[in-house]
Amino acid sequence: MTQATLIDGKAFALTVRERVAKAAQVLKDRDGIHPGLAVVLVGEDPASQIYVRNKHKATVEAGLHSFEHRLPAEATESELLALVAQLNEDPRVNGILVQLPLPKQIDEAAVIAAIHPDKDVDGFHVINAGRLWTGGAGTVPCTPLGCLQLLKHHVGNLSGKKALVIGRSNIVGKPMAGLLLNESCTVTVAHSRTADLAAEVAQADIVVAAVGRPRMVKGEWLKPGAVVIDVGINRIDAGDGKTKVVGDVDFDSAVERAGAITPVPGGVGPMTIAMLLYNTLRATCLQAGVAVPAELDA
Amino acid sequence: MTQATLIDGKAFALTVRERVAKAAQVLKDRDGIHPGLAVVLVGEDPASQIYVRNKHKATVEAGLHSFEHRLPAEATESELLALVAQLNEDPRVNGILVQLPLPKQIDEAAVIAAIHPDKDVDGFHVINAGRLWTGGAGTVPCTPLGCLQLLKHHVGNLSGKKALVIGRSNIVGKPMAGLLLNESCTVTVAHSRTADLAAEVAQADIVVAAVGRPRMVKGEWLKPGAVVIDVGINRIDAGDGKTKVVGDVDFDSAVERAGAITPVPGGVGPMTIAMLLYNTLRATCLQAGVAVPAELDA
Ligand SMILES: NC(=O)c1ccc[n+]([C@@H]2O[C@H](COP(=O)([O-])OP(=O)(O)OC[C@H]3O[C@@H](n4cnc5c(N)ncnc54)[C@H](OP(=O)(O)O)[C@@H]3O)[C@@H](O)[C@H]2O)c1
Ligand SMILES: NC(=O)c1ccc[n+]([C@@H]2O[C@H](COP(=O)([O-])OP(=O)(O)OC[C@H]3O[C@@H](n4cnc5c(N)ncnc54)[C@H](OP(=O)(O)O)[C@@H]3O)[C@@H](O)[C@H]2O)c1
Repeated sequence: MTQATLIDGKAFALTVRERVAKAAQVLKDRDGIHPGLAVVLVGEDPASQIYVRNKHKATVEAGLHSFEHRLPAEATESELLALVAQLNEDPRVNGILVQLPLPKQIDEAAVIAAIHPDKDVDGFHVINAGRLWTGGAGTVPCTPLGCLQLLKHHVGNLSGKKALVIGRSNIVGKPMAGLLLNESCTVTVAHSRTADLAAEVAQADIVVAAVGRPRMVKGEWLKPGAVVIDVGINRIDAGDGKTKVVGDVDFDSAVERAGAITPVPGGVGPMTIAMLLYNTLRATCLQAGVAVPAELDA
Repeated sequence: MTQATLIDGKAFALTVRERVAKAAQVLKDRDGIHPGLAVVLVGEDPASQIYVRNKHKATVEAGLHSFEHRLPAEATESELLALVAQLNEDPRVNGILVQLPLPKQIDEAAVIAAIHPDKDVDGFHVINAGRLWTGGAGTVPCTPLGCLQLLKHHVGNLSGKKALVIGRSNIVGKPMAGLLLNESCTVTVAHSRTADLAAEVAQADIVVAAVGRPRMVKGEWLKPGAVVIDVGINRIDAGDGKTKVVGDVDFDSAVERAGAITPVPGGVGPMTIAMLLYNTLRATCLQAGVAVPAELDA
């Protein structure tokens, strides 16, 4: 049996980051603009600290200005809101990302709502969700946007394809469905109440799995030749006293049947930060009222 | 063969309007509030004039205050925006509806964006679209909300049902999909690029057709027992020199196979105005910071 093509998100993310760097250079030379991304971390969550460090590194590498703000774990909501308000006003800051999750005493929804929609490079603001679903030009959450870019790079025109999104979270599943609908896929959204998930998978030309359950989607369910985007990041026992990260798709059986598949790790994961930089660049152009450099989507 | 149950939208809409009237009475007695709906008509479009007249009548009948504003066909966008701004400020006005379509010189999107989201009883504002898709408490467009109420009344719990929405407009298809997803249906959205519409229809427990093509959905496509909501309003040649209105579903064949179906006319159509009053009542409570009277959803 022929094996599926591996969709190399790591390599593709690098090309996106190079494009962002080129576009940033254009903004500098052409418009005298230096895009800036502010990342806010509240508390000491170890995973969040790693994310924030990686974001900082990638931001600087792409030639963007990186602002880091750290608040203690016991910071109050009004302290965080005051910081967000200050970043909203700061002309050097074009993108604002508040690293989630936030400590319990802070209402995440209130913080997201406080970020200026045009600086909301995570795409979580209600106005950006609304723009996605009404055809407006907004910012799209990084992970589904990364999935879409991988799909378009790999498949080309998505119009008329049958796409299944498994998961309906605000940060992955729902925006993914909106993006695929805007690309004229026939889109189905499945979730924990779906009666027969295997039957849904069996019909899909494109499967995006964003569930958070290790290896739940079985290769045998797939339509032969389907393109599989695995968003899942699940840490499991590796059997040797260590742990390892696997996706929501059972890779070993899926690779025998899919036409193409993203590995975990090395598939969707690296795209998220790349799209954050991409979103920041677009946001900068929007705020400055200048054209998005062609280099960004070249 | 047993025939499908007819879902009587006309009768159900009357019960909704009675509930609105009771709830309005409670607001008056309990809170001293008299909900008000402002409808703005620009120009002389005959269909729009009929809609506006019907809305006015229904509003008054439900015990709500009805404000009608008419602008000439050659009104400018800034004149209309000035009126909207005035209605946004007017405390007697809890809901604002600008009758669409607008004359060519006026940008509909700009006008919709200018309506205060909390007074946007049409549910077309980008913030209300965003709320629908992120789980927030917003106003939902009247027609899909009416479809949902008919479905819930008829089917009960929708969780796990396979639902197909045909059409992806901002005013019907997409919000309908969002509503059904929030009810935990497995939702598919089809449209003009869908490869095999009959195959999609064949699997669906619930079909909502919002296409604008007379009798396009054939009864033979349906899964036996499916519940069919026909949003289409298509005026066709009746053969006798007159015209008549038919839906997007071929009623005569569908009624032989569906479990239940909305007729056209008399199905979804009457629900739209009822939901407009319903939305106005909810908006009034939200603005006044008072509880929604239990009578509204009794
Ligand atoms: N690569 C990245 O950069 C990245 C970014 C974000 C997330 N992720 C990963 O992606 C996965 C999903 O993240 P998320 O934030 O979207 O998760 P989430 O908010 O927990 O949502 C999970 C979704 O999966 C659905 N689900 C749960 N069990 C299911 C089942 N048995 N069958 C079908 N659907 C089921 C849930 O349905 P209900 O709605 O019915 O509960 C829910 O909609 C996680 O593994 C996460 O770590 C990766
Ligand atoms: N009862 C009421 O109160 C009420 C309210 C509003 C509307 N309506 C009626 O509902 C219908 C739809 O209204 P709308 O405003 O949503 O219409 P619309 O904006 O014209 O949207 C029509 C949708 O149908 C899709 N479509 C067109 N041809 C198709 C085909 N052959 N197969 C599958 N899908 C197809 C289109 O796909 P693409 O996106 O790919 O073009 C589009 O998404 C109309 O008949 C309208 O009069 C009734």
